[in-house]
Amino acid sequence: MKQFMDKDFLLFNDTAKKLFHESAANMPIFDWHCHLSPKEIYENKQPADITELWLAGDHYKWRAMRSFGIDEKYITGDASSYEKFKAWAKAMPYCIGNPLYHWTHLELQRYFGIYEPLSEKTADKIWEEANAKIAAGGFTPRQLIEASNVKYVCTTDDAADTLEYHKLIREDKSFKCKVLPAFRPDKALSIDLATYLPWLASLENVSGEKIDSYKKLTEVLKTRIAFFAEMGCRASDHGFLYVPYKRATDTELETIFAKAINKEELSEYEVDQYKTELFRFFAKEYARLGWGCEIHIGPMRNNNTKMFNAIGPDTGFDSIGDRNIAEDLSKMLDSLAVEDSLPKTILFCLNPKDNYVLGSMLGNFQNSEAASKIQFGSGWWFNDNIDGMREQMKALSNLGVLGKFVGMVTDSRSFLSYPRHEYFRRILCGLVGDMVENGLYPYTHELEQIIKDISYNNAVNYFGVE
Amino acid sequence: MKQFMDKDFLLFNDTAKKLFHESAANMPIFDWHCHLSPKEIYENKQPADITELWLAGDHYKWRAMRSFGIDEKYITGDASSYEKFKAWAKAMPYCIGNPLYHWTHLELQRYFGIYEPLSEKTADKIWEEANAKIAAGGFTPRQLIEASNVKYVCTTDDAADTLEYHKLIREDKSFKCKVLPAFRPDKALSIDLATYLPWLASLENVSGEKIDSYKKLTEVLKTRIAFFAEMGCRASDHGFLYVPYKRATDTELETIFAKAINKEELSEYEVDQYKTELFRFFAKEYARLGWGCEIHIGPMRNNNTKMFNAIGPDTGFDSIGDRNIAEDLSKMLDSLAVEDSLPKTILFCLNPKDNYVLGSMLGNFQNSEAASKIQFGSGWWFNDNIDGMREQMKALSNLGVLGKFVGMVTDSRSFLSYPRHEYFRRILCGLVGDMVENGLYPYTHELEQIIKDISYNNAVNYFGVE
Amino acid sequence: MKQFMDKDFLLFNDTAKKLFHESAANMPIFDWHCHLSPKEIYENKQPADITELWLAGDHYKWRAMRSFGIDEKYITGDASSYEKFKAWAKAMPYCIGNPLYHWTHLELQRYFGIYEPLSEKTADKIWEEANAKIAAGGFTPRQLIEASNVKYVCTTDDAADTLEYHKLIREDKSFKCKVLPAFRPDKALSIDLATYLPWLASLENVSGEKIDSYKKLTEVLKTRIAFFAEMGCRASDHGFLYVPYKRATDTELETIFAKAINKEELSEYEVDQYKTELFRFFAKEYARLGWGCEIHIGPMRNNNTKMFNAIGPDTGFDSIGDRNIAEDLSKMLDSLAVEDSLPKTILFCLNPKDNYVLGSMLGNFQNSEAASKIQFGSGWWFNDNIDGMREQMKALSNLGVLGKFVGMVTDSRSFLSYPRHEYFRRILCGLVGDMVENGLYPYTHELEQIIKDISYNNAVNYFGVE
Repeated sequence: MKQFMDKDFLLFNDTAKKLFHESAANMPIFDWHCHLSPKEIYENKQPADITELWLAGDHYKWRAMRSFGIDEKYITGDASSYEKFKAWAKAMPYCIGNPLYHWTHLELQRYFGIYEPLSEKTADKIWEEANAKIAAGGFTPRQLIEASNVKYVCTTDDAADTLEYHKLIREDKSFKCKVLPAFRPDKALSIDLATYLPWLASLENVSGEKIDSYKKLTEVLKTRIAFFAEMGCRASDHGFLYVPYKRATDTELETIFAKAINKEELSEYEVDQYKTELFRFFAKEYARLGWGCEIHIGPMRNNNTKMFNAIGPDTGFDSIGDRNIAEDLSKMLDSLAVEDSLPKTILFCLNPKDNYVLGSMLGNFQNSEAASKIQFGSGWWFNDNIDGMREQMKALSNLGVLGKFVGMVTDSRSFLSYPRHEYFRRILCGLVGDMVENGLYPYTHELEQIIKDISYNNAVNYFGVE
Repeated sequence: MKQFMDKDFLLFNDTAKKLFHESAANMPIFDWHCHLSPKEIYENKQPADITELWLAGDHYKWRAMRSFGIDEKYITGDASSYEKFKAWAKAMPYCIGNPLYHWTHLELQRYFGIYEPLSEKTADKIWEEANAKIAAGGFTPRQLIEASNVKYVCTTDDAADTLEYHKLIREDKSFKCKVLPAFRPDKALSIDLATYLPWLASLENVSGEKIDSYKKLTEVLKTRIAFFAEMGCRASDHGFLYVPYKRATDTELETIFAKAINKEELSEYEVDQYKTELFRFFAKEYARLGWGCEIHIGPMRNNNTKMFNAIGPDTGFDSIGDRNIAEDLSKMLDSLAVEDSLPKTILFCLNPKDNYVLGSMLGNFQNSEAASKIQFGSGWWFNDNIDGMREQMKALSNLGVLGKFVGMVTDSRSFLSYPRHEYFRRILCGLVGDMVENGLYPYTHELEQIIKDISYNNAVNYFGVE
Repeated sequence: MKQFMDKDFLLFNDTAKKLFHESAANMPIFDWHCHLSPKEIYENKQPADITELWLAGDHYKWRAMRSFGIDEKYITGDASSYEKFKAWAKAMPYCIGNPLYHWTHLELQRYFGIYEPLSEKTADKIWEEANAKIAAGGFTPRQLIEASNVKYVCTTDDAADTLEYHKLIREDKSFKCKVLPAFRPDKALSIDLATYLPWLASLENVSGEKIDSYKKLTEVLKTRIAFFAEMGCRASDHGFLYVPYKRATDTELETIFAKAINKEELSEYEVDQYKTELFRFFAKEYARLGWGCEIHIGPMRNNNTKMFNAIGPDTGFDSIGDRNIAEDLSKMLDSLAVEDSLPKTILFCLNPKDNYVLGSMLGNFQNSEAASKIQFGSGWWFNDNIDGMREQMKALSNLGVLGKFVGMVTDSRSFLSYPRHEYFRRILCGLVGDMVENGLYPYTHELEQIIKDISYNNAVNYFGVE
């Protein structure tokens, strides 16, 4: 029996061990998509206890706790930090096979030096020990980032964001990690949501411009994109249940925009038209600037109206959609390629049924503008687990060129989540190690370099940050 | 080489063996969803031969025989029992990897003490030996149920059923297994099928009420539900190609109902409206009574019109549908949750592409009303095999809390099918055993308890039968 | 560590080795679906170099090269043969896990006796050695086919094809492999494409008939089918993004046809009607003649308009579609079965999400007309890799009768692609070998026969070529 989560965790043969320990483990991290708060990075506050680090904002854990049957009081309610920690500890042993089980113990091991499994029985001891270590120092955001060997971070920033904390971080030369903004204009595209008009007001505010037409909107957004570029942005990010493709004329777009600002109802078709053309506008800008365009396809958000009304979005009530995505996505990408305006694009799917759709879509639009110009994003959110990451990599290896993969991102709100890169690298080395040990691929020094590339270098080259 | 289906069948390491033999194997069975006939349980007749037990009603075997190329005469036709057995024996070796191969041999081993593989060559010997054992006794429905350590069975009963055999079974104190009805109002929902009006007549008959409006229909159904509850019912069951979500007003429902009883054609939209609102009505009743609501999503039924006309439904001509199910299912569950009327719900999918949709859907609606209030049902029908059950459990473990899973049901028409629980438990212990041996989960006594829980206790607690 | 691609490649235990080496390896090949050119087989020209054999027409390799970031000049452009070979060699090591990696090295081993991995470093040496062997002889189409132990080949021929090269090949008694035409009337069905009217003209030309009505079209097609039958045809082939099912009357079909020849636009519904009824016409003919009807479902073709305009179709810009296919496909097959006109049918899916839909669809229409009359086609195109073939076989084994599977086809344009049958057989023996070694299936002589059957005999019996 292999020991529980020891140094060879997820490495089941000598090749896997060698690849991980000698090639992957020591590469720095480029976390090119996450939800860390630039404000928190700048302010660099001391956390109160392990509950603040683990349970204050992690809706993955909240979901697991609800699934175990824990009362909301001990999740997002007014129970004490200690009670919440105990509730989480109690649920832990039941989460057999869940990535939270592994993340929790990787974080205990790497940041706290604690190697005991968390359960109701061990909760008090771990609570004391972890909090003592936090109090002793080393757990502020910047300390955690630097201790994790992170060289670059791309945050997720609204198009109307002032990026003031990005400026402040940049001015502070003592912090070695480069924190770059990433352009996420979801609110600009969500003309169908209640957030649209308030967002438009915030864009008017930040730009000092009256936005009274679709044309004006794109002009202002262009200035925002230029500002993001000045601030070092190399990536954009878009979230879609599905990528629409309903073309519209300028006149139609003005009509749709006018309806929206007049609070008239839009048809689904009109919403799709607006999203199609505004996304095409964005993509052309990204292509011009050489940005990577991340497209995250598939989440169905805020499924529980009662809980949304009670505690808002991003609290653990999202799940996986199942739209048919292949045809419109293909047309969208083609419509850009035909105008020589398709940016470097990273396609992520939340529904693993789409792995082979995306994995084969890539090949339609590859060319020599970049190594694997169209990328298949790593197993994400509900797929950010051993099976999900393996399946994504197997699809990519079967359909494309694994050696040029830009690899892992945390997609996380937590400063303790960098071991997810380690988790990914172990899974990668496990997968490739199996191939080598099974005689499916020869062991060469090129392979060692490829593992380093997937761990770090490919992303650096792809986004052009150095 | 491991010996063919020996005592460690499907158990590939010491942890798996220990978990199965020491924790899972001896737990009783709670078969909370099956298609056993209460009449047959009550009448408790002696079967004529192994063909009656195996081939009289098992459309899984019929399909396999047709796929092998056997003439219908030897399947549902007028061939002799011996000829049908021989035909099945001949097909058997070609069913490599099919669960029927394993079920057949598990049943030969457990009920007949026969350990030889069935084939054309061994058919005569096994025919003699099995029939001699049947003649010697121990093969009536109740004997088989008791020999299989079954404590509870939930059958599948139409809303208009008198439950007369349930009453008779209950009155017979000599039978130790509790046989509970489960409420399956598919015919009430199938307003689009030719079965609707005859069913409505049977409901009028059993209730003694004239049902001339939708309102009246729900009133009568309420009394039926109350009657089922009195009879010990703790579960309902619904079959859908897809769960619709098209809301309707009371007036619209009355119009739709009136059209139906006047034999006017209904649009697809109207059918969906009726199904949506009637299901919502049912679900609220289940929530009030604390019943578990099973939703089986995905079968496409009666695909072969010629054979349907010749030998009717449930004869092996159903297959897997592929509708998009995520959005309407989410809205349906949300519409109940927002009214605090979402019952404990077990979601089953027939199409394995939906594993991650359902596995992530659960989390949207969990709360402290029950441990894993929303459950992901075990691999079912076309997924009731090693891969299907493993994939379902892997999805559940990645996305939810495996330790609170309510586990296996036979979903069977056969009194010999209880080894499917053993099959499931072996697969479960194999899966968890692998995790432990690979260092992904620590071996603890909690784990032994969790295996017992998934085998039996979780279902007992969830349905509240004790 | 297993040695890289040695004689036991993909065979991980003794049973797998025994089954492959003793039963599978020496069976002949019946390649019942490929895209080899009868003209090239007839002309039997000496190839210039390995670039001509490998890179002149293989759009799988072209995609991989583009994905690696190679300029089109070195793919389909005017670079030299040597430069193109070097470009491919450079990309090779990055294609970890891609079937191209295995195919490339199987072909180097089997046809060239070269056992070194191809990379930038070894490229020059392999270029010299391979070209010297080609120059020394044994690399013409017929030599490659005979050296590969191929007994039968079915090509892919348009309904308007004269089959002149088939005649010429047949007349040449020195060639031992039987080359049969297969009827592929995609252009006849594609009434919505620009190719339709030119195709119709070619049909008029070959038949000497004026085709001015739908009725006339079917009459002429009937004569074509009869001509194909005379020429030894035993199989037809159809490609669909999805199989439509929109019935139409004769009058409607005439209207649709008239619109098409008058270049009026057809609605999607009309196109589907035409395809539905013309396919039904074809299927009835196949049923009458006992042909196998192959249906390839799922490709989304020519996704990149810019590249389509530059270099045309079948150049590596196709990918996997994701339509819902279950219901219309079921209705289509049922509409034929109900008229006793459903031919032997082989269903292929390009999207692996459909494996369980097709695998279960088969069972709806099986009967004693043939062993596994409805077949589930092997992992194809984007699934023609270890995972894809394993998943297809696992689905088939779970849902049907694996022992009656008609097995592998190359679906290839290359005369070097026969090792894909070896690849398939190794995967098959690996899969079944695992079952046996794990105690899931007993080792018997019947099993050896079944492996031989799946490798060759089942297809021979199914298509009735002997």
